[in-house]
Order: sequence, then structure tokens, then C-alpha cells
Amino acid sequence: MKLAILFGGSSFEHEISIVSAITMKKVLKNTTLTYIFVSSDRRFYLIDADKINSKLFSSGEYKKSKELTLKKGGFFIDGMFGSKVVDFDVALNLIHGRDGEDGKISSLMTFFDIPFISPRMEASALSYNKLYTKFLAESLGVKTVAYEYLSKTDERKITMPYPVIIKPVRLGSSIGVSIVRVASELDYALDVAFEFDTDVIVEPFIEGVKEFNQAGCFTSEWELSIVEEPQKEEFLDFEKKYMDFSRDSQVLAADISAETTENIQNAFKTIYNTLFQGSIIRCDFFVVEGEVLLNEINPIPGSMANYLFEDFEAMVGRLSKSLPKENSIQIDYQYIHSIQSAKGKA
Amino acid sequence: MKLAILFGGSSFEHEISIVSAITMKKVLKNTTLTYIFVSSDRRFYLIDADKINSKLFSSGEYKKSKELTLKKGGFFIDGMFGSKVVDFDVALNLIHGRDGEDGKISSLMTFFDIPFISPRMEASALSYNKLYTKFLAESLGVKTVAYEYLSKTDERKITMPYPVIIKPVRLGSSIGVSIVRVASELDYALDVAFEFDTDVIVEPFIEGVKEFNQAGCFTSEWELSIVEEPQKEEFLDFEKKYMDFSRDSQVLAADISAETTENIQNAFKTIYNTLFQGSIIRCDFFVVEGEVLLNEINPIPGSMANYLFEDFEAMVGRLSKSLPKENSIQIDYQYIHSIQSAKGKA
Repeated sequence: MKLAILFGGSSFEHEISIVSAITMKKVLKNTTLTYIFVSSDRRFYLIDADKINSKLFSSGEYKKSKELTLKKGGFFIDGMFGSKVVDFDVALNLIHGRDGEDGKISSLMTFFDIPFISPRMEASALSYNKLYTKFLAESLGVKTVAYEYLSKTDERKITMPYPVIIKPVRLGSSIGVSIVRVASELDYALDVAFEFDTDVIVEPFIEGVKEFNQAGCFTSEWELSIVEEPQKEEFLDFEKKYMDFSRDSQVLAADISAETTENIQNAFKTIYNTLFQGSIIRCDFFVVEGEVLLNEINPIPGSMANYLFEDFEAMVGRLSKSLPKENSIQIDYQYIHSIQSAKGKA
Repeated sequence: MKLAILFGGSSFEHEISIVSAITMKKVLKNTTLTYIFVSSDRRFYLIDADKINSKLFSSGEYKKSKELTLKKGGFFIDGMFGSKVVDFDVALNLIHGRDGEDGKISSLMTFFDIPFISPRMEASALSYNKLYTKFLAESLGVKTVAYEYLSKTDERKITMPYPVIIKPVRLGSSIGVSIVRVASELDYALDVAFEFDTDVIVEPFIEGVKEFNQAGCFTSEWELSIVEEPQKEEFLDFEKKYMDFSRDSQVLAADISAETTENIQNAFKTIYNTLFQGSIIRCDFFVVEGEVLLNEINPIPGSMANYLFEDFEAMVGRLSKSLPKENSIQIDYQYIHSIQSAKGKA
């Protein structure tokens, strides 16, 4: 199979997307990889898979690569004598954060009719925004952590007891996230969060909460990863998460009961089905007093959570063959024709 | 001002978008208009404003127009000696239904850095889907009509009493909508709706309900239209709505109390602010026993609801000057640099 990896983007997670993309080389050994870099100013570059390394981007060297134009049916190399399409079967959206997770890349791929692995537009809009994730989970009967919502222009008042955790609604990788232990620290934490986003959610900070990650997708059947209990400190800061995005070796399943595993898997399936078809996502859950609570949806998880699957590469192959398609809409201009003929008679 | 009107699209409402676009010529008399047609197979064509008429599209004649390529900063005419950008200040998204209202066009305009009038991506995702509109309204404390939700694979059972109205969640212009008066008709109505969409909502059909439309936008201040009580039969079918999209003459304000007007306007502002910044939308409300209920959000209303405003053209000019911008994100590659220097030391 020929897979094009889209990475980079105008995102605070631009650099970790580069790390994720490079990791794919180690993980997708039997796949023909094409790399398409989205620069921070949103131009497309064709990157030689043999030469990809992080310095290519940090040095600006990538600008010497061929620039691509997105048109109906693919990415094109424009030349003196017409343009030539870049050859691949399916694109894998590996842009973390803005552009990749907010629905822009999905919109582009859908509009220009390029088969792609990624949450579709609606799934992106609902999972990229932590407030909308709450709406989604509530409507599906999946429990989440309690929360309050604050917009930049709202009065800075919360009603839940401390400690709390403040999260910008639209960012991943713990950017702008703070734990607030006493009321006097709230203002500063909100200043930090509002530097990155216009809206935040506030949740109780649950000391020593058990966290579990479940990744998966639906191909012709459910393909669920092991349930992982991530090692963690209070929470991962950006730099630690950054290193985490280059993971490529498998981990052990969490030591939990069959019942808890089943509850986590059922919650995952409820969230995924059918909104997230065509994507590999990771859901992060808390287990509090035996109850499974959705913490976050990671629509484009770091290095695609490959390390949670037994045979990630084969699964990507199967998913590539079961991507959802938009309904085709035939336009026959019957209304315009009928108006014209009515006018003709008049 | 130079305004580019984007219209057409891969949408069941493709034809009414053409009607809306042609209507703009009569309404925006002092604006330099450029027409960019999105064909049903999603190619872009530059249409001569002097020659635009509905037959150009129904006959397929439009294919002789210049095809455009979307690139960073604009739409381009590619030629033998390089490419030339189409000259305009702001694009107006006038694509009804899919592509225009679902967030694709907004994604494209944002990604390629073209100033545009339209709901942004998140606003589109939430308003295009009638189920998500319910979530949004509930979270903002705006009351809506009661509803049940059914997906294509769900058991076809509803609990609310008849008569009910069945609506596909993602379509406008009454496409796939049916009133069901007795249980025996439910199955057929669902068959019709599920031909157009995978999900439907079911609402009580309220005989003779009072309906009121409020359009508006926020520029440097609120610019609200008159409140209109649309003439209606039970509900407008597609053909009648189609004719409705070519309206260009002003209507009279509804004969309602100052209090009801204020309640409608407050509900409109609550929905709009700040999610819909950069767009002119129309919200349709029901008033039931004195209570204002949101029925639907029209993110790209027919002919932009121009007939509800006193000076639509001047308002479009002001809105063009107060469009929201995405935060700029500077990528400095500090994490990649620091990893590289750590590796160098090792």
C-alpha cells in the first residue's frame, strides 16, 4: 500500500507532528510512505522519505523541496509542461492540534476527493473542543468528569471546590493547562489558558486518579488496542509529551479487571460509533470509585498510538479499505429547467 | 468594495444557491462583484458578473469559463506564464447546504488565508447538524422544541405523541422533512428522511405555531434585522423555498409586542455571540404560549436574508471590515533544537 503522511500544520503541536511522522517510518516498514509537509504558513511540500529528519524542518531546508498544489483528486507538482499528481492510495492525517484535529484537513481531503484516514469534519469539531466533547458524551450516555465553562469575557468565578484543573478547550498536549490548588492562583492560571484560547473548562483535579487509554478503530469489525495505564506524574507537560510522541515499542496491558476493561471498551465504542469512522483515535478515561469517566478524546493521537496495537501496520491497511465516503449528490438542474420553461410560457 | 460570491457546491441546495447568487446582483448594486462557481464536482470557475444567469449553469455552458486553483492567498488563474490571483477583498460564502454550511468552505478559506463572510468551522459544524444545534442551545440556556434522536441503525421507536415532524439532521430547505400524523406513517417518513441522511430528529408538530425569523450579525455593534413572521403553509416544501431564495424586496416587521421582540433578539444574540462572528445568519423561532423557542439556525440563509434589513449592502461593507482572524502561531522549533543539542552532547 502507498500511504501519504500529512504532518506539520499551523499548530502549537507542529513540532510533535514532525516527531510523530518520523516515528511512522519505524512502524510502517512494509508500506510505501510519501511525506507531505504542511509548513507553518500552510504550504505543502513533498518530502523525500529517505531523507526525512527533524533538522530538515528546524533548519528551513524543507523549503528546497517541491511545493505541491492541492486540486481535485490529489496533490500536484506543477511544472513547465503541466502538472503531475503525487502517487499514493490513502492519506494519513498526522497533524496534531489546529488544522489536523479541528477539521480543516478533513474538509480539504473530503472537498478535493482524496481518500484519507482521520476523523471526519463533524467528529473533529466535536472532539477538538473539550466543551463539545462533553455535549457529545452526555448525549451518548457516556459519563465524563464534572466541569464548568468559562469564556474570556466571563466573570472569573467558579463554584467547584479546589483543587481544580484549567484547560483551554481547543488545545492538546497539555498546552495552557494548569492545576489550581487555591483560589488565589486561579487568576494566573486563567491568564495562561486565555493566552492560548478564548474558552476554558474547569474540572476537579482528582489526586492520584487512575487513568487508562484505549485506542482503536472500526474496519469491518472492531479493532481495539490493549488498555494502557499510562505512567504519569501529576500530568505530562509539553516537553514530556513531546518525547512521548516518538514511542514505537509495544507496552503491556494495564492490570485491571475484565469488567473494568469491558466498561472502558464499551465507552470507547459508544463514542466512536459511527461518528469517528475512518479514523484511529485514542480515548483517555478516568476510573473513579469503579466508574469509567471519559477524560478526553485524542482524534489524532501521538504517533497514532501505534504502541498499543499488536500489528498496527496491518490494521492501517484494513482501515484504508473501509473508509467512509460522502453520499454522491447528482445535480440535474430540474428546478432551474422548470422555472425557465414556466417563463417561456408566460 | 470588491466582493467574491462563492456559490453552487456539492449540495442538494446547489440550484437555490445559484438563485441566491443571482439575487445578490440586484441587492449589492454598489459593490464590485466577482462570481466564483463551485461546480457539483467541486471545481472552481470564474463567472462573468455581466453574463450570470441560471441557464449558464443548467446548460453546462459554465464549463467554458476559466477554471481556478485555490492556493495560499486566493483563487488563481493558471496560465502559460505563471498564475494570476483573482482580485477581490472579501469572499461571501453563499453555498447553501453541504460544503457551504457544513464547514468545508470555511475550512478552505481559513486554511488558504482568504478573508470571508460565513460562519467559521465550529459554528458551521454545530448549526448544520440539527442535533448539535440542540446541544448548543441547551448549553447556552436558549430553549428549543423537545426532540428525540434516531440514527439509521436504531430501532424505529419514538415515545412522543403524534403528530410529529421528522427532519434529517444535516439538511436544509425542508429536504426529507415529513409530518407524521399517525404511527402507521412513521416508517415511510423515516425511509424518506434516511434517504438523505444517516440521522434524524423527531419533534412534536405544533399545529398553527407562530414562527418568527430574526437575522443579523455583529460588526462593531449588533446589527439586527426586523423580526419577520414568514407567511407559511404547514411548512414550505423545496419548490416554494426555492422561489423564496430569490427575494430582494423588503418586508414588514411582524406585529408582535416589544417584549416578544426583545426575547427573540436576546435569544439570537445569545446563539450568535461569539461563535458566529464573521457571519450573517438567520435564526427561526417558534413562540409557544409566550415562550420563545429556537427552531433552527440558518447559517447561510437564502439570499442572505437581505430583505429583512434596511440597508443590507452597507452592513455587508461593515461586516467585511470586522471579520474574526485566527491567532497566528509562531513555530520556532525550540523543542527540536533542544533535542538536537542534547543528542550532540551525548
